[in-house]
Amino acid sequence: MTRPEAGRRDRLRATAASAGLDAVLVTDLLNVRYLTGFTGSNGALLLRVDGADVFGTDGRYTTQAGTQVPDVELLVDRATMPALARAARTGGATRLGFESHVVTVDELRGLERLLGEDGAAVELVSVRRAVEALRAIKDEGEVEALRRACAVADAALAELAAEGALRPGRTELQVGRELDARMLALGAEAPSFETIVATGANSAIPHHRPDSTELAEGDFLKLDFGATVDGYHSDMTRTLVLGHAADWQREVYELVATSQAAGRAALAVGTEVTAVDAAARDVIVAAGHGEHFTHGLGHGVGLEIHEAPGISALGAGTLAAGMAVTVEPGVYLPGHGGVRIEDTLIVTDDEPELLTLTSKELLVL
Amino acid sequence: MTRPEAGRRDRLRATAASAGLDAVLVTDLLNVRYLTGFTGSNGALLLRVDGADVFGTDGRYTTQAGTQVPDVELLVDRATMPALARAARTGGATRLGFESHVVTVDELRGLERLLGEDGAAVELVSVRRAVEALRAIKDEGEVEALRRACAVADAALAELAAEGALRPGRTELQVGRELDARMLALGAEAPSFETIVATGANSAIPHHRPDSTELAEGDFLKLDFGATVDGYHSDMTRTLVLGHAADWQREVYELVATSQAAGRAALAVGTEVTAVDAAARDVIVAAGHGEHFTHGLGHGVGLEIHEAPGISALGAGTLAAGMAVTVEPGVYLPGHGGVRIEDTLIVTDDEPELLTLTSKELLVL
Repeated sequence: MTRPEAGRRDRLRATAASAGLDAVLVTDLLNVRYLTGFTGSNGALLLRVDGADVFGTDGRYTTQAGTQVPDVELLVDRATMPALARAARTGGATRLGFESHVVTVDELRGLERLLGEDGAAVELVSVRRAVEALRAIKDEGEVEALRRACAVADAALAELAAEGALRPGRTELQVGRELDARMLALGAEAPSFETIVATGANSAIPHHRPDSTELAEGDFLKLDFGATVDGYHSDMTRTLVLGHAADWQREVYELVATSQAAGRAALAVGTEVTAVDAAARDVIVAAGHGEHFTHGLGHGVGLEIHEAPGISALGAGTLAAGMAVTVEPGVYLPGHGGVRIEDTLIVTDDEPELLTLTSKELLVL
Repeated sequence: MTRPEAGRRDRLRATAASAGLDAVLVTDLLNVRYLTGFTGSNGALLLRVDGADVFGTDGRYTTQAGTQVPDVELLVDRATMPALARAARTGGATRLGFESHVVTVDELRGLERLLGEDGAAVELVSVRRAVEALRAIKDEGEVEALRRACAVADAALAELAAEGALRPGRTELQVGRELDARMLALGAEAPSFETIVATGANSAIPHHRPDSTELAEGDFLKLDFGATVDGYHSDMTRTLVLGHAADWQREVYELVATSQAAGRAALAVGTEVTAVDAAARDVIVAAGHGEHFTHGLGHGVGLEIHEAPGISALGAGTLAAGMAVTVEPGVYLPGHGGVRIEDTLIVTDDEPELLTLTSKELLVL
């Protein structure tokens, strides 16, 4: 059976050929993972238009590379990037693509020196985010990993709520650590990012870091968290109320929930990302809270927690089937409290597939 | 009271002045944290020789920056790096240092375009790893964070052993996840790196990823792990035997333990890092196992799990008081098993201070 990574390499090969390149040096570690399956901490791929690709890593990973990248020629060298560049030159490449958004100034100087040796003339050409563009469209295996990552987050929150761990007197830090430990116990490799637990007035800070603030009766409790499974990240935000919800809290919550539903409903193939943002934002602006929604509506999610496409008023491009995105409007009332509701979904030719299944009814604990 | 970060900035300021720079744009996030205390995911520092430093971040972190970086002028801008470069130009800088090992090719092009606007002539000069060189020497607060990080790892392993969690029939993955969960419960922010659990023949792979291999009677069990506390990493390896240790296992273990003690004994101010490596390696070579010790002896540890100084046959430089380093020789017998013993220590004017306190007697569980 052909591994999905082989098909991904062929898609990049087509891009490279149409740009007149002989080869591309892929050095971003997540892009390397996407194209080869390699999960170690040092690896790079020389992708050749003629199909004779080479995967490079150092001696620590010889065995792992044999297992994870059985279908690409292996080159073991401590200085992986120079070794692959030399292989490109030896193979007769005259136009070599590189990832200019990842390669550092020092690394480029090293490559230029190396490729200029012996008077050889190899032109280094930026391919920009060519691999990231491929990564924006998930295949079935990736969607399955995202489903599992979202399911772990759903289960972790359900367990915490069922056990009464979200009660007055506990601190944000305690809740955050338990959520993290629970996700690990449920099979996550790691939390997707630093878990946000924000209660009371802290919930009005979009990216509050959990501290020793105690959960209290009548306060909002905002939880923004996710699990990483097989390298793929989930992202979900839920906002609850402890004890009893005041009218103003119900109003803000309903507003954000309505906005979030409008954003989800706008997720369709061919829709401009700016239009998706507007669909959700217009609801909040119409209610007079435009200035309290201070960030973009969402972002792509996959091997990175934030990746293409960005969904905001400043974004560009349209949605395509297979994109994995978040929809996460928020209304933040400084000094009082804030609500954000966020799901991870897959864009399809039909309805979007919802991956984060925790209820979005206002939960009063 | 002056914060330690202010003293660190003054040390970098002296370096910058002696290099004839007007200012340095620090963009490596860990270097920014070291110099300011900021722990968010986007921040940069414009360090000026005249003392009028500017810390830049985006709107998500306005509040956090006010708390964590109270002693540096704040500039809030979505495009942090360009905004600080503009501030340097406006302030009259003509020679601006930048971190060429961190800044990408695309970022440098952006800075060059920006600084060339209006015919202004600002020269961009690489400062290389100037901040990393400062970071190699830890101050008392950093050593205290390292002590706590090491104590968490010690306690996590002790708890797992006491509970009988390291027994035949359990898988490497189960043990690794429990070790991680235990470190989190004990107050770690995260594991320091992907925990290595390697049993039986897997223990001969220096950086084996835990898999579903079951622990079995008579096998080695190698655990290489650490905790992150306040951003500082610990690093420890212990190798145990399950059930009963065979003679060959005791021999390999004693050899590595003797080598490791020799390496620790060589940690003294002024010693070349190559001499420290040799002190430990000579023991293993003399026993005829030189080819089975396939990596360097150790590395610096701090805000990164691997940082300056590298301790290997290829290293350069000498030890100084306040350096935090690992000493971790190993002997790996392919197909059979391997032993690595690793501590984290602080170099002092006297004896090195041992931070990882778990016993190094061969533990037979």
